[in-house]
Amino acid sequence: MTDRTPNIPEVVEEVRALFERYETALETKDVEVLDATFWRSPHTIRYALHENGYGFDEIHAHRVRRPPGPGIKEKRIRLEILTLGRDFATTNLEFKVRGKDLIGRQSQTLVKFDDVGWKVVAAHVSTVSEALW
Amino acid sequence: MTDRTPNIPEVVEEVRALFERYETALETKDVEVLDATFWRSPHTIRYALHENGYGFDEIHAHRVRRPPGPGIKEKRIRLEILTLGRDFATTNLEFKVRGKDLIGRQSQTLVKFDDVGWKVVAAHVSTVSEALW
Repeated sequence: MTDRTPNIPEVVEEVRALFERYETALETKDVEVLDATFWRSPHTIRYALHENGYGFDEIHAHRVRRPPGPGIKEKRIRLEILTLGRDFATTNLEFKVRGKDLIGRQSQTLVKFDDVGWKVVAAHVSTVSEALW
Repeated sequence: MTDRTPNIPEVVEEVRALFERYETALETKDVEVLDATFWRSPHTIRYALHENGYGFDEIHAHRVRRPPGPGIKEKRIRLEILTLGRDFATTNLEFKVRGKDLIGRQSQTLVKFDDVGWKVVAAHVSTVSEALW
């Protein structure tokens, strides 16, 4: 049996600490921390607001190219952290976009590896779309 | 040691079969299959194009409300399935939006539970945004 107990408190706190470290690194454009948060693998994917990054190297290049500044998150609306057992997690943040009448969403999927610890293996950032049909 | 071998072929095939079943169900609006694909939990999250669904019940309500029709995917551009070990997977699909000059992205995070098998625990669908700054 695999233990998939949801939201064991100490596991949630591990993931929350990582999440907050990442959010701070986004604001300060701390590429070292941003890179350290993501799995260093060609399989890692980050769908960002304006670009799709396939593999760690592309994601890193997008980080470097990003203009400095406070980023697009003006205010958090809702943050949900889900852990299942001790080595799997998702984070989902709904936020107000800075200076725009738009809702943003940021999703991360994290796995705790035996050798390198918690890493984001997939991420997706977007805004809610206007009606398409 | 937790086995986190990437992309064991038979595991990828399990996830691919689920993925294709889900895509067909989106096209035919087969709510039973759509519901069966997602984890029946208040923790499940689906960020859709136009709405944010928190918990299985909200996600189900969005399915029911969705207008029938062929959906927004006109053509697949790139599909990446990643499995790590035998009980964890992500799917990421980049697609052309039907009738619009827009790129869409669909991400799913799946966990294989001992009792109910593979389920999507988090999903995010969006289009690439126009430049916000």
